[in-house]
Amino acid sequence: MSQGTKETITISLDAMGGDNAPVSEVAGAVETVSETDGINVVLVGQREKIESELKKHSFDNSRILVHDAFEVIEMHESPTEAIKKKQNSSLIVGLKLHKEKSADAFISAGNTGAVMAASLFTLGRIANVSRPTIGSRFPTERGITIVFDVGANVDCKPVNLLEFAVMGSVYASHIFGIDNPTIGLLSVGEEKTKGDLLTTEAYELLEKSGLNFTGNVEGRDVLRGTVNVVVCDGFVGNVILKFAEGVLGILRTKFKDYAEKNILNKIKVGLAHGTMKGVMKDFDYQEYGGVPLLGVSGVSIIGHGRSSPKAFKNMILRAEQMVRAKINQIIESKIKDIKEFVPKTA
Amino acid sequence: MSQGTKETITISLDAMGGDNAPVSEVAGAVETVSETDGINVVLVGQREKIESELKKHSFDNSRILVHDAFEVIEMHESPTEAIKKKQNSSLIVGLKLHKEKSADAFISAGNTGAVMAASLFTLGRIANVSRPTIGSRFPTERGITIVFDVGANVDCKPVNLLEFAVMGSVYASHIFGIDNPTIGLLSVGEEKTKGDLLTTEAYELLEKSGLNFTGNVEGRDVLRGTVNVVVCDGFVGNVILKFAEGVLGILRTKFKDYAEKNILNKIKVGLAHGTMKGVMKDFDYQEYGGVPLLGVSGVSIIGHGRSSPKAFKNMILRAEQMVRAKINQIIESKIKDIKEFVPKTA
Repeated sequence: MSQGTKETITISLDAMGGDNAPVSEVAGAVETVSETDGINVVLVGQREKIESELKKHSFDNSRILVHDAFEVIEMHESPTEAIKKKQNSSLIVGLKLHKEKSADAFISAGNTGAVMAASLFTLGRIANVSRPTIGSRFPTERGITIVFDVGANVDCKPVNLLEFAVMGSVYASHIFGIDNPTIGLLSVGEEKTKGDLLTTEAYELLEKSGLNFTGNVEGRDVLRGTVNVVVCDGFVGNVILKFAEGVLGILRTKFKDYAEKNILNKIKVGLAHGTMKGVMKDFDYQEYGGVPLLGVSGVSIIGHGRSSPKAFKNMILRAEQMVRAKINQIIESKIKDIKEFVPKTA
Repeated sequence: MSQGTKETITISLDAMGGDNAPVSEVAGAVETVSETDGINVVLVGQREKIESELKKHSFDNSRILVHDAFEVIEMHESPTEAIKKKQNSSLIVGLKLHKEKSADAFISAGNTGAVMAASLFTLGRIANVSRPTIGSRFPTERGITIVFDVGANVDCKPVNLLEFAVMGSVYASHIFGIDNPTIGLLSVGEEKTKGDLLTTEAYELLEKSGLNFTGNVEGRDVLRGTVNVVVCDGFVGNVILKFAEGVLGILRTKFKDYAEKNILNKIKVGLAHGTMKGVMKDFDYQEYGGVPLLGVSGVSIIGHGRSSPKAFKNMILRAEQMVRAKINQIIESKIKDIKEFVPKTA
């Protein structure tokens, strides 16, 4: 990216969202402005708590601002009720800063359902997008694979999967620099006829879409990196996302059990520790930062509740990239093109 | 199990099913009869090929018979067409031996779709079971977790999930000796209201079923071993089954890549090799043998195409256990009890 001439991007960061808020949020913001230029961060939330954290760090204080929001939406709250009741929450106030163009993007590691619903409600949808989608990168044997949708949408219609494919393709191409990304439809067999009612109908739409659609893929193809973009209903996408999160847990437990069997095993596991760490890094969501909500009129990134400072830094950098790449303008234009061939009943 | 007085169980084994047939089938049968008693095996398929394999082993030849079937259903064939056309295949002939009670159970590592369809067609269903189901064990941090359904059924109705729960509960209890197995409904959040149309309706049925239903579970709970039986539509179950199979592949690739970076890494991975092998054993389907098809009037076990001799032995032992436990009689009685409270529309 060329330095000097680029415009400064302002990120609105929900400082009260994560499990460890505002500690990791503040540390992530400080880390980002210390290591990069061209990005300012507005920390939204309870000023006293945020400022007491900021005092622990040294940084260019012209680049990190604090914006008041006295309410906090908790993890366990019902998204719709919380949004209605807590209009002065860091989530709603932070999103409004983005809506009013005081910020170019919004990030939160808070209650995922609430962040999705509030983003959609506050920012609105890109024209012709029926349902915004959350995509998540998965670890792969080779290359980049992003799965859309991983939780925003259940009971999808075929046209929703087509839209996920369009948005996913734009994202893979403009954020990861992949030329004409390959798209796979997650199913239970490679043949066109394999699948459920949703996927067999979606297959027809994808085939005619002009996207680089390579056909059905199976569960194992996600980890193999067979295609760049995997599309599926948010129910199955969310299940495999959480299943993948569990892989790290089971490996840790198995190694621990193995080590506890005898002293020789303990030594072996000790020696293997660094190797495992290097290898399992890929299963660590902190590396990926967060998941983008595509299809809303704005840039909204949702972090894991347990996001580390590094994860927040990665989310801020991803948000910057999405803003500079003008992702939404491209999605709007591609969705418009593709919608023209879709039957109204799909 | 008490020795001496027990009846001999006869297993009909499709000797032409797997990728490496009849090599692994024959070796698995020989291994079983050499290590156990009370089990005889009928190898069904092309006599010449089977006998030439048998010649490589020494065993009690009163316990392994060969039964002729000159046709073979290939992996790539369409299940319904193959079954219609190839009535003299090892699959159909082997199943008929079971149907006619010349054998107590049937095992095949052939074309999964064909084995399911032919089992259902030849053996019929247990009374009141609307859809038979395939269940698969998953590796867990602690305890036994079996997921139903993993591939037989897509576009399920709520009552199908209820039936999977009943069959899964009987299986976990009578095969794995778990007292009153816990049942979880796979969904995208723990709360009752989280899920799609199918799961929110299935929740209502499960709650009233009298089973030990503990509510929704998420993707990560499968690997954690949170419940003994996880029920879901066969689409999502099949996706996570294949996803889990991919975990072993990605770990192998990552270790290889790590080792290739430099000589120190290579040494570290060499030292870690045995540890990894011990730990990853749980992700190896060969250990589990195969997956049972529950709900058909008989015992039918489906193996992975790449099943090893050990996997065949494990399938034979599992089939024996299912026969001796009279699994189907118990399922029939439980399904009858539970169907009484289900509304006809579910």
